[in-house]
Amino acid sequence: VLLGDLCLGWSDELLNTSGLSDDALRRGRPVFERMRTELIAGQYLDVLEQVSGALEPGRQAARARRVIRYKSARYSVEHPLLLGGSLAGGAAQLLASYSAYGLALGEAFQLRDDVLGVFGDPHRTGKPAGDDLREGKRTLLVAYTLERASPAQAEAVGALLGNPSLDRAGVDALCEIIVKTGALQRVELLVDDLAASAAAALADSPVIAEARDALAELIIAATARTL
Amino acid sequence: VLLGDLCLGWSDELLNTSGLSDDALRRGRPVFERMRTELIAGQYLDVLEQVSGALEPGRQAARARRVIRYKSARYSVEHPLLLGGSLAGGAAQLLASYSAYGLALGEAFQLRDDVLGVFGDPHRTGKPAGDDLREGKRTLLVAYTLERASPAQAEAVGALLGNPSLDRAGVDALCEIIVKTGALQRVELLVDDLAASAAAALADSPVIAEARDALAELIIAATARTL
Repeated sequence: VLLGDLCLGWSDELLNTSGLSDDALRRGRPVFERMRTELIAGQYLDVLEQVSGALEPGRQAARARRVIRYKSARYSVEHPLLLGGSLAGGAAQLLASYSAYGLALGEAFQLRDDVLGVFGDPHRTGKPAGDDLREGKRTLLVAYTLERASPAQAEAVGALLGNPSLDRAGVDALCEIIVKTGALQRVELLVDDLAASAAAALADSPVIAEARDALAELIIAATARTL
Repeated sequence: VLLGDLCLGWSDELLNTSGLSDDALRRGRPVFERMRTELIAGQYLDVLEQVSGALEPGRQAARARRVIRYKSARYSVEHPLLLGGSLAGGAAQLLASYSAYGLALGEAFQLRDDVLGVFGDPHRTGKPAGDDLREGKRTLLVAYTLERASPAQAEAVGALLGNPSLDRAGVDALCEIIVKTGALQRVELLVDDLAASAAAALADSPVIAEARDALAELIIAATARTL
């Protein structure tokens, strides 16, 4: 906790001592401050989801996406772009296109990460297979699974998800339910939709050519099916 | 933890959006940043003391005073004065006198707080009597007690200090040892010495008259034997 506090303080100190002009800092700091506040709010929402128990399945999906937006999408893609754009004095139209691109791609990136956390090759992801399932993370994948689960499947999910000592067979059983309920496919389709939205926002953006190329590559890198 | 992070972020945002000039902020922000970093370091040292087990008694006192300096003295008195002085464009001599005054008074204030935490009237302090003893806080009072404790007294302290269910009789037994070993008196003398140092620094300070009066009153308020 203290190391996190230290890094939180230092992140701000680094910005202040970056050598940027007062004018640039005056434009960039509100973005930095909003990013920091929203990230903390997103983490709070995430903790709240983990402890607030069963909701109707329909609400779970909406809640999972809200957590992703605050905790991941804005923080990982949208706000960093807005921060750079604001420091550089980008026009409102450019910043708006960064928002549209970044929010969509950031959500797609987190959804891809959720899928890799369950179905990814541990040798490539560096994360033990099924750790998100052992932790009981309330991802969109899980919300979609519960939306379409039969009573028997729902009972199995309730028994297995969040069990810290879940073994390989338990992970496989959960993965099978996630696939059979169509949840994996729905998340994959959503990732494709979001990547397409990001690409459309980029096409409409007044961004310069080099940045356009880099942002186009980022869509592929952030949503690729393997690492 | 998240609420603390949020307040940590907001404290910085409040400074940045205070309406102070860029020049004032350029002077004040490094003080703010040093205060934040040293406070976190002080909290870390405090946690480290609680878990690092028995040291030779002579080292405990030095360690307890180091924690007080980083966690309390600089944060509660010295740095706030330096922050205000820097924002206002105070000269080096003024800032040096604030440091000398603030570090001494801040330490005295924390030592007074430690004494009140053990011997204070709960109706006046608002803290249950003996809570610092139940928590096992490694205060200077405790370090001095162990320096002069007989083997039987040291054994009693070891058995009682940090026991979360310590009752009134246990608290009284510890208080008696703290008094009999002379620890209470040594801390009181140190508070007096530090208050005198703060007063001497104030006497030498080029501070304006109104501030001098307020800072003289603060010495009394921060070191008074009751609340």
